[in-house]
Amino acid sequence: MRTVGVDLGGTKCLAVAVEGGRVIGERRVHTPAGGTAVLDALAAVASDVAGGAEIAGVGVGVPGLVDRGGALRFAPNLPGVVDLPIKAELEARLGLPVRVDNDATCATWGERQAGAAQGYDDVVLVALGTGIGGGIVAGGHLLRGANGFAGEVGHMVLDPAGPPCPCGQRGCWERYASGGGLGRLGQAAAAEGRAARVLALAGGDPAAVRGEHITAAAAEGDAEAQAVLAELGRWVALGLVNLANAFDPQAFVLGGGLVEVGDLLLAPVRAAFATLLASGAHRPPIAIVPASLGEHAGAIGAACLFDAGGAGRVGSAP
Amino acid sequence: MRTVGVDLGGTKCLAVAVEGGRVIGERRVHTPAGGTAVLDALAAVASDVAGGAEIAGVGVGVPGLVDRGGALRFAPNLPGVVDLPIKAELEARLGLPVRVDNDATCATWGERQAGAAQGYDDVVLVALGTGIGGGIVAGGHLLRGANGFAGEVGHMVLDPAGPPCPCGQRGCWERYASGGGLGRLGQAAAAEGRAARVLALAGGDPAAVRGEHITAAAAEGDAEAQAVLAELGRWVALGLVNLANAFDPQAFVLGGGLVEVGDLLLAPVRAAFATLLASGAHRPPIAIVPASLGEHAGAIGAACLFDAGGAGRVGSAP
Repeated sequence: MRTVGVDLGGTKCLAVAVEGGRVIGERRVHTPAGGTAVLDALAAVASDVAGGAEIAGVGVGVPGLVDRGGALRFAPNLPGVVDLPIKAELEARLGLPVRVDNDATCATWGERQAGAAQGYDDVVLVALGTGIGGGIVAGGHLLRGANGFAGEVGHMVLDPAGPPCPCGQRGCWERYASGGGLGRLGQAAAAEGRAARVLALAGGDPAAVRGEHITAAAAEGDAEAQAVLAELGRWVALGLVNLANAFDPQAFVLGGGLVEVGDLLLAPVRAAFATLLASGAHRPPIAIVPASLGEHAGAIGAACLFDAGGAGRVGSAP
Repeated sequence: MRTVGVDLGGTKCLAVAVEGGRVIGERRVHTPAGGTAVLDALAAVASDVAGGAEIAGVGVGVPGLVDRGGALRFAPNLPGVVDLPIKAELEARLGLPVRVDNDATCATWGERQAGAAQGYDDVVLVALGTGIGGGIVAGGHLLRGANGFAGEVGHMVLDPAGPPCPCGQRGCWERYASGGGLGRLGQAAAAEGRAARVLALAGGDPAAVRGEHITAAAAEGDAEAQAVLAELGRWVALGLVNLANAFDPQAFVLGGGLVEVGDLLLAPVRAAFATLLASGAHRPPIAIVPASLGEHAGAIGAACLFDAGGAGRVGSAP
């Protein structure tokens, strides 16, 4: 069965054709402004990547909230797009079955069907970047929740007296375990004289330290920068422990830009997780592995929405 | 279909016979010490409540960790019970199918099939007592996780610098949103002169204030005690918000001793929850309702493990 998946992003649409879990074609176009233009672009890029071959369906991953009818209800990063009935409009234009889901949900399903989460029936994907995205597979099926909003793990509160979050709460996980959170840890280290190389990369001003200065210094082998990454690892692990207590997964798959430093972050995450998980002695170890599909995860997962476990249960598919 | 459910507790076993979701018989016996004696007691009370009628199966809810083979692996509140193969031993003694699950999981399923969670396919049960227990229904099925440990929400960390928890972490939800947490809030209020009636009930010593002094004064109409319950409600709501972001449920069902005060606690929980949930404007309201089966929830749920959604998926049934 050949299917097409499109990952609709704020700046580009990435389309793939997938057969047997393998990508056999890829296209990308800029994301235009406005709902009708977005629909036209999605239809065009899907047709283009299909290349005239027979297609069983088109999956679309979107950066926002999707209702059960496949309409995009709320998408803060797509100006001019409100209440867009993507499924209905694309089915009319393409004459093919269309499924629409949240982009993080699609990326989770992509890693489960074709990436680092293959073989795990209970697995949580956490994408650590500017913010934190997430997705959950339980019993081999995507967990969508009542409204398709499940997996919004970045706004888990880890400290009600913590820094304010744009969401209106304080101390959300993504205030700590994100690029911005790494920058704040690095600023504190630099101000306290614990990050000489990082401070040099930031031009000498502790307030100018950003996440990339820390990852760059750590990659050079700078021990102080690696210590800051270990602090970040503890915050990552703290959220993972909460998720482990709630979901009891076999594995966590960590994606997003922060994970590109590899074991410089993953090793401290694993060490802190093992220390923090209370029931660790009574259950098999939980694997913590990096995602493997990179920027293609969402498009591949959208194409895989037509696989058995992706559509329907847990929670109904749009 | 008539089934039997037994809730194995640290002090007593409560057995019910259930048909069509209704309890048609009930027995209780003391829980004896030692694995063999526990098996004998379970077999006897199950046969007794069945009363000679034809039974489709026996479900058992146990206070601990259950593996996929129906063995009780770890039960801190049952002295002398280690690695007890309950399913295999009871099936041999009774000649009937036996299913075994965690007691909080059973209570969740009981409320889902015959109590306050009826009609909800995505619902989280939270039991607020000495600690916090929990259970999750996703897409109409019990969520068990990879090892049957899902739903351990009481050890969600809400403040990594908070009070130490016997589990080894700091600032677990059950340090705050529990009887002990209420006592600590009351002690602080009494020491600061904000709880005159509570202090009187505790004999005049702020350090002697316990949760029941606060609930008693609040039930009398004491405004200061009700303000302490509202503080507790905010801690309850904070954990519920984290669970809402992860699971996207239609409803929370709150059980356990603390909920016996009713709206004195539920009203502040609902108010704080509505304020704290970031995406509240973009989704249908999430109901927060009290559990309705009381101490029978676990036994009824154990009996209902033979209903379609209880057994098997999500996560395999033992």
